[in-house]
Amino acid sequence: MALLVVGSVAYDSVETPFGKVDQALGGSATYFSLSASFFTPVRLVACVGKDFKQEHRALLESRNVDLGGLQVLEGDTFRWSGAYGYDLNDARTLDTQLNVFSDFNPELPEDFRQSEYLFLGNIDPDLQRNVLAQVRAPKVVACDTMNYWIDGQFKSLLETLKGVDLLVINDAETRQLAQESNLVKAARKIMTWGPKTIVVKRGEYGVVKFGLNSKNELDVFGAPAYPLEDVFDPTGAGDTFAGGMMGYLAGTDRYDDQAIRQAIIFGSVMASFNVEKFSVDRLSELTFTEVELRYREFKQITHFDDVVELERF
Amino acid sequence: MALLVVGSVAYDSVETPFGKVDQALGGSATYFSLSASFFTPVRLVACVGKDFKQEHRALLESRNVDLGGLQVLEGDTFRWSGAYGYDLNDARTLDTQLNVFSDFNPELPEDFRQSEYLFLGNIDPDLQRNVLAQVRAPKVVACDTMNYWIDGQFKSLLETLKGVDLLVINDAETRQLAQESNLVKAARKIMTWGPKTIVVKRGEYGVVKFGLNSKNELDVFGAPAYPLEDVFDPTGAGDTFAGGMMGYLAGTDRYDDQAIRQAIIFGSVMASFNVEKFSVDRLSELTFTEVELRYREFKQITHFDDVVELERF
Repeated sequence: MALLVVGSVAYDSVETPFGKVDQALGGSATYFSLSASFFTPVRLVACVGKDFKQEHRALLESRNVDLGGLQVLEGDTFRWSGAYGYDLNDARTLDTQLNVFSDFNPELPEDFRQSEYLFLGNIDPDLQRNVLAQVRAPKVVACDTMNYWIDGQFKSLLETLKGVDLLVINDAETRQLAQESNLVKAARKIMTWGPKTIVVKRGEYGVVKFGLNSKNELDVFGAPAYPLEDVFDPTGAGDTFAGGMMGYLAGTDRYDDQAIRQAIIFGSVMASFNVEKFSVDRLSELTFTEVELRYREFKQITHFDDVVELERF
Repeated sequence: MALLVVGSVAYDSVETPFGKVDQALGGSATYFSLSASFFTPVRLVACVGKDFKQEHRALLESRNVDLGGLQVLEGDTFRWSGAYGYDLNDARTLDTQLNVFSDFNPELPEDFRQSEYLFLGNIDPDLQRNVLAQVRAPKVVACDTMNYWIDGQFKSLLETLKGVDLLVINDAETRQLAQESNLVKAARKIMTWGPKTIVVKRGEYGVVKFGLNSKNELDVFGAPAYPLEDVFDPTGAGDTFAGGMMGYLAGTDRYDDQAIRQAIIFGSVMASFNVEKFSVDRLSELTFTEVELRYREFKQITHFDDVVELERF
C-alpha cells in the first residue's frame, strides 16, 4: 500500500565527537522516506528551495520515493545545524533557518490523495490537519510532534490528535503532553484524546508501545534498542525509526497488534543502522539482507524461555 | 542450592510523594534475602544492633532465611533516611548512621562456608573479598557495587572483581567504573577484569545483560521493566532484582545463558512488586502464584513474531 509522509527536507550541519558534516542531506521526511522505502513505495510531501541538489533528488527517486509532492519554492532549502556531546542523547541546536519552509502550504497531487497509510511528520499541527483533510480515506494515520508544538500550539495539536490512530513520540514529550510524570498514566490519558496506540521512543533505552486490547485493557509491548558500540551521528534516528515502522505496516497492509510489534522492531533496526554514519550515508548503502539479519538479531537479544515448572519455597 | 548473601540490614526512613515510613525494615541484604527466598534457601550474613526487632527476625525466618550469620552487636542498627521526588529515579539521602555497621567484620558459620551461590552485596570491597575467602568452593560469585566504592576504593574493587563471575551494577556506575560513555564498550572493558557477565540495571528502562558466547563473541540480552502505574517506593528495587535473579539461579542450579535470561526476568518481576508498597510490605505478602503470573506477562510484553517472508523493494 502507498505510504504518504509530510515533513521537512533539509540541509543539516552536524558536529559530533566523531566528526562533522556540512550541509548534508537531512530533514524528517528525508530520513522517514529512505527508511520506509525498504518496505513500500513512499510519497513525499515537503518543500525545498532552488538550491536543492539534483543528486539528492536522484537518490530519493532511486529508492522508490515519489517526489510528486515536493514543492520547489523561491529561496533556500531549510537549514539546521547542531552539535552532540559524548552522551549523544541530546542535540544542541546551533542554528535554524526555516527559509522556504516558512511559506510551506502543502498541496497534494491528485494521486497522493488516495494514500492508505499516512505519516504526519513533526510540523505545525495546523499543517498536519491540512494534509490529513486532503487524503480521502486513509486506513492508518500516524503522527509525530515535539515540545515546540506542545508548548505553543497545544489546542491545535489536540485537534490533530482526534484524527490520529498512532502517535509516535519521545519519552519526555509523552510526559509533557499529558502533564503526567508516570509514563503509563500519561499514555492512558493521551489515548482518550484520539490515538489508540502510543509508541514512545526512548533513544538508547528502546521503545515502549501502549495500546488497548479487544477487552479495552492496556496492552504493552517493550523492546530494547540495538546495542551499538559506535554511534556516529544520532540525527534522524527518530524519523528513521518511524519510517521503518510505517513502511512495514504499509508494505504488509496490516495494522493488528503483532504487525505493530514487528513494525516497531523494523523501525528499531532501521534507526540502529542510520546512526552508524553521518547524514543518510548508511541508509543509502544499506541492503535488505542486512535489515533482515538485524531483525533476527533482535529476536535473539530479546528471547527468554518460558518457565515450565519451578520448585516452590 | 544454598545462596549466601552479605550486605546490610537497616532501618529506613523514606519519604515519597505518596507517603512516608519511619524506621521501617530495609537494607540491601534484607531486600535481597526476601526476594531470593521465593526460589531457594538463603543464608544471610550481616550485622544489626541490640534494637533489632524480634518481629523482623521472625519475618526473615518465616521466609526460609537462615540468620546464622546475622551478628548482633552492641549499639544501634544501621539507619538510612532518604526522599524521592515525583520522577522516583534518584533518592536524595537525608541521613546515614552506620552505627554497628562501622564495626562489621563478617565471620561465616561453618555450614555457610559450603554455599554454592554467593552474592557480595554493595559493601566495602575489602569486606567482599573477606567473605569470598571464607567460602570454600563457590560455583557462582555475583557482586554489586556503587559510585562510593568506585570513587574511593577503586583498586580494592578491581581486586574483588577478579574473583567475580557476575557483576550487577547500574547504568551510570557501569560507565563510571569503565571510564567509558558507551555502555557496550564499558561492559566489554569490565569483562576483561574478571566478571564474564555484566547485568546492567536501568531502573524504569529495564535491564541489559552483556556476556560472551562460546565463540567469545559479545552476547546481549535486553528486557524492559514491567510497566507500573503506581510506584510508591523505589527503595530496595535493585537489591530485590538481584535477589530474584540469584535466587532463581541457585534454586535451579543452572548458570547457562538461558537460565541467566530467565533469572533476569524473575529479578525484574520481584523488583516490580517491591516498589508497589513501602519497605518490604509487598514482598512480605507476595505469593508465588503472583510471581509466575507476572513472569508470563513479561513474556507477553516482550514477544514479537518472526518475519517469515517479506516483499523486497
